Amino acid sequence: MLQSLNHKALYNAFEMTSREGKRRMLSKFLIIACLTVILAPPALSLQSEINVWPKPRLLVWPKPLATFLSPNFTISSPNHQHLTPAVNRYLCLIKTEHHHPLVTPSVIVSNSSAPLKTLSINVIDLTAPLQHGVNETYALAVSEVDGTAYLTAATAWGAMRGLETFSQMVWGDPSVVPVGVYVWDAPLFAHRGVMLDTSRNYYAVEDILRTIGAMSANKLNVFHWHITDSHSFPLMVPSEPELAAKGSYGPDMIYSPSDVARIVQFGLEHGVRVLPEIDSPGHSGSWTEAYPEIVACANMFWWPAGSLWADRLASEPGTGHLNPLNPKTYQVLKNVIRDVATLFPETFYHGGADEVIPGCWKADPTIQSFLSNGGTLSQLLETFVNSTLPYIISLNRTVVYWEDVLLDDNVKVDSSFLPREYTILQTWNNGTNNTKKIVEAGYQAIVSSSEFYYLDCGHGDFLGNDSIYDQQTAGGNSGNGGSWCEPFKTWQTIYNYDITYGLSEEEAKLVLGGEVALWSEQADPTVLDPRIWPRTSAMAETLWSGNRDETGNKRYAEATDRLNEWRYRMVTRGIKAEPLQPLWCVRNPGMCNTVNAF
Amino acid sequence: MLQSLNHKALYNAFEMTSREGKRRMLSKFLIIACLTVILAPPALSLQSEINVWPKPRLLVWPKPLATFLSPNFTISSPNHQHLTPAVNRYLCLIKTEHHHPLVTPSVIVSNSSAPLKTLSINVIDLTAPLQHGVNETYALAVSEVDGTAYLTAATAWGAMRGLETFSQMVWGDPSVVPVGVYVWDAPLFAHRGVMLDTSRNYYAVEDILRTIGAMSANKLNVFHWHITDSHSFPLMVPSEPELAAKGSYGPDMIYSPSDVARIVQFGLEHGVRVLPEIDSPGHSGSWTEAYPEIVACANMFWWPAGSLWADRLASEPGTGHLNPLNPKTYQVLKNVIRDVATLFPETFYHGGADEVIPGCWKADPTIQSFLSNGGTLSQLLETFVNSTLPYIISLNRTVVYWEDVLLDDNVKVDSSFLPREYTILQTWNNGTNNTKKIVEAGYQAIVSSSEFYYLDCGHGDFLGNDSIYDQQTAGGNSGNGGSWCEPFKTWQTIYNYDITYGLSEEEAKLVLGGEVALWSEQADPTVLDPRIWPRTSAMAETLWSGNRDETGNKRYAEATDRLNEWRYRMVTRGIKAEPLQPLWCVRNPGMCNTVNAF
Repeated sequence: MLQSLNHKALYNAFEMTSREGKRRMLSKFLIIACLTVILAPPALSLQSEINVWPKPRLLVWPKPLATFLSPNFTISSPNHQHLTPAVNRYLCLIKTEHHHPLVTPSVIVSNSSAPLKTLSINVIDLTAPLQHGVNETYALAVSEVDGTAYLTAATAWGAMRGLETFSQMVWGDPSVVPVGVYVWDAPLFAHRGVMLDTSRNYYAVEDILRTIGAMSANKLNVFHWHITDSHSFPLMVPSEPELAAKGSYGPDMIYSPSDVARIVQFGLEHGVRVLPEIDSPGHSGSWTEAYPEIVACANMFWWPAGSLWADRLASEPGTGHLNPLNPKTYQVLKNVIRDVATLFPETFYHGGADEVIPGCWKADPTIQSFLSNGGTLSQLLETFVNSTLPYIISLNRTVVYWEDVLLDDNVKVDSSFLPREYTILQTWNNGTNNTKKIVEAGYQAIVSSSEFYYLDCGHGDFLGNDSIYDQQTAGGNSGNGGSWCEPFKTWQTIYNYDITYGLSEEEAKLVLGGEVALWSEQADPTVLDPRIWPRTSAMAETLWSGNRDETGNKRYAEATDRLNEWRYRMVTRGIKAEPLQPLWCVRNPGMCNTVNAF
Repeated sequence: MLQSLNHKALYNAFEMTSREGKRRMLSKFLIIACLTVILAPPALSLQSEINVWPKPRLLVWPKPLATFLSPNFTISSPNHQHLTPAVNRYLCLIKTEHHHPLVTPSVIVSNSSAPLKTLSINVIDLTAPLQHGVNETYALAVSEVDGTAYLTAATAWGAMRGLETFSQMVWGDPSVVPVGVYVWDAPLFAHRGVMLDTSRNYYAVEDILRTIGAMSANKLNVFHWHITDSHSFPLMVPSEPELAAKGSYGPDMIYSPSDVARIVQFGLEHGVRVLPEIDSPGHSGSWTEAYPEIVACANMFWWPAGSLWADRLASEPGTGHLNPLNPKTYQVLKNVIRDVATLFPETFYHGGADEVIPGCWKADPTIQSFLSNGGTLSQLLETFVNSTLPYIISLNRTVVYWEDVLLDDNVKVDSSFLPREYTILQTWNNGTNNTKKIVEAGYQAIVSSSEFYYLDCGHGDFLGNDSIYDQQTAGGNSGNGGSWCEPFKTWQTIYNYDITYGLSEEEAKLVLGGEVALWSEQADPTVLDPRIWPRTSAMAETLWSGNRDETGNKRYAEATDRLNEWRYRMVTRGIKAEPLQPLWCVRNPGMCNTVNAF
């Protein structure tokens, strides 16, 4: 009987075995655990009608048996500051959701099985903090005989992943749970994130919390908060209050320290790190309202009529770069960095450092003087990095920069300014090519390829007065449609992307994971959910358990039906994820494929 | 004083004058009406900080003066079954909205002006029904001195347009209204619509009502309801109840006769016609569940592996065409047509007739026999049209078909089967080329060019198992992104399209107007609002008052700032219209243009 098993020992043994070993062990486990149904060794399979997204690494359910969830169902769990609220939340969800799948699983609700009364959680290391690399492994077994499910997790954060898995295994009214099921699960990549830009347009705290909640349901673990940019400075920094007071969109569009604390706390209770980005020295026009003296080329027209693209003042409308030659720049910026490090417990600090545009710095008189004396723009950036990076490291932070700081064509720093043990580079250009450049240079990488992971692409350009849209003939508006990173990234584009493509095994180890990015030129709360979901679920599965089946083939065909179901469940949970197909396709699996696969 | 003017006489005289005459008359009107401020003849201008969308044909506001809306503000109006509820609705909106523009208009709230106490409505023809071509002209004058605004309209429907205009002129808390303003307004095109597909995915009645409400706010007047298709049959047809009982997505996804009545009534109270489409003979797979005997090629895989595109069975997954050779087809279809004509008072009936796919009919044994005896597919379609069109006309309906019925490459009818006085063709292919073909053939046209007016384009393909998305190299997923009608149609693409481009003046008269279309393969209620709005507002202005300024130049640059404001107002009214730009752009007009226009 399952109760007689030491599931902690099983979990530990399981951790140490090979994939094949895991299967043999599971056979044995199931023979013991499922005595009432298994007379022959079970036919193990990763296929299952249990629809957990992202798909677990290993899910074994030899017989399609289920039992009712007891009306007195409860969860027993060790006490933990962040896990306990998660347990309470999941208990409520599990008892009240009564999810009705679009395609009802073929299960037999066994009369011989006891109703499931308890989910018993065991956490091996309750002290592990939520930080990069924390062990998220868990194992989940639902006994067929004793009315108990057992969740063993390496950490509290792994337990949250297991709770989510369990919650997705419950459906119906009255609620039904599969029994005789065993899940072993752990992520392929440690860093699985969503980047949201709250500067170009503002999002309410509730929007951010809802996004973090949905991330947790998809087993994502990093909310990369691109807080500030040239357009607004919505973060109230206690020691520099003027930045938000003057640089935000208004008093009702500011994140106060208590807002940040609420978001961080919410993240902790959902196993999601909140990684702040204060973009500088570029993308900082919004600092001008408080400190005009530290910002070069502020409030200028971004691309003067008749000038070359190379001579523009910003990557897009909204000019302004911090001036590396003004000591005041560092006084203000260090205050910001220190306060951000206080507000956010996260041990990564994102410094931005993308898109330093030559024309902006060149427009500043003091910089002109520096350049005319033989200085270079890259030297300016080195000065900036050297005046801030050591300070960030001194606050016990690892710095994340966008790849530009090392790979930009024009303005970049020598790698000697970027200590490899404290610097991570986030790639967004040239697909896998730049990922390879970063890891070849010995840096850890986070992948946010604009060709695959930019969620804002394909909605045209946001610029006004654009004559390319004044076409009358058929096809006149074809081509890229005006979006610099067109086309729209479909869920299949995202799902199929292999972020370590073309890397050696050693190089691949430097890839921490990936992040989809939602830049907000054409996004705000009205479209937040459908822009992010369910496409981000596609990345979530690829980074958690991969995008291939047991035979090594890409599994996007069968993932279609699973993702339709998961998207529907997200909608019923209050996330306005966009539809992928007509409901008819969901009801007729395979019939909406490009070839008849059935 | 304004009260001494006979505003009905003024309105009538105004109607009869030329554009220049209108200006001269307005000068005179304003001299009389605005004695307290106008000492010299006013500098007339269409430019204004009053942000009414779509922009009125003529808006004169010589001095930026405003007054408060009286707390006792009321609207006096003749009693009318549909106008009276609209008046009550607008009275509530006007008194409670307290809109705060993103960029506050520069107005002087005049102490000398009386608070506005009354909007006095006069309707010249209260009996005109809501139907194609009804006169929507109105004139609106806000007196500066007597606390009254005067709205004179040709019909109740024109009065609703004027009420919307007036509502958009009120802002602030306490509410402020411009005074000394005169508006004359009428649409350039009589048919201004939105097509929504409720078959591929279902929309609740509330979603449809919200859409009709937003259409009315944009002065659109036709909700083209593509009710049925191959994927589901959600309309409960009283004499053929099995069609929805078996062909809908489920009992909670059916439009009952009382739902339809509610939608039609809501349309009437918003000046929006509800034009039903029952697509046939193609796009009718959902009829199979009730009547398998009348549907050819039902429930087959749409594009068998290895077969040519020309041999597919449907334009997309979801097969099934009505069989023109089975008498039962017409028995069922005529019951449907008769009931639809009863449910919908609208005098247009849309019969579909698009995308008859040769492979589908060819898959049917009885049709195979007909073809092997020398018959053609086009003869089959002629039989179908000849067996239904006269019946539709006998019910006092004008028939709308998609252009395919006349212009398809393979399966089409001779124009002798399509009487020009009772047939309108809706174009969707080849941009202005097909519009020209239709009007050259002597037919009236409704323009829904997929290159300009299809709102679903640019989101990739919805097909599963699509290997085009399995690309790893940078740019590998570029190109069209999988959407057959890519790219995404931006608001500027839509705004700039001239639906009578390349037509003679006589030909242009046959173009009734246009419709944007939202096909629902990748849409459902989660994305309804942002897919439709504010891009549809762009078409709304172009079809109402055009897309050019007084000098004849396209006005998309200044429209950007106005549309940002209008989009924001729609959001505050509960329509989740997607953002076009960062808020920063709205606050800094012109700074997000492609060239420095200021």
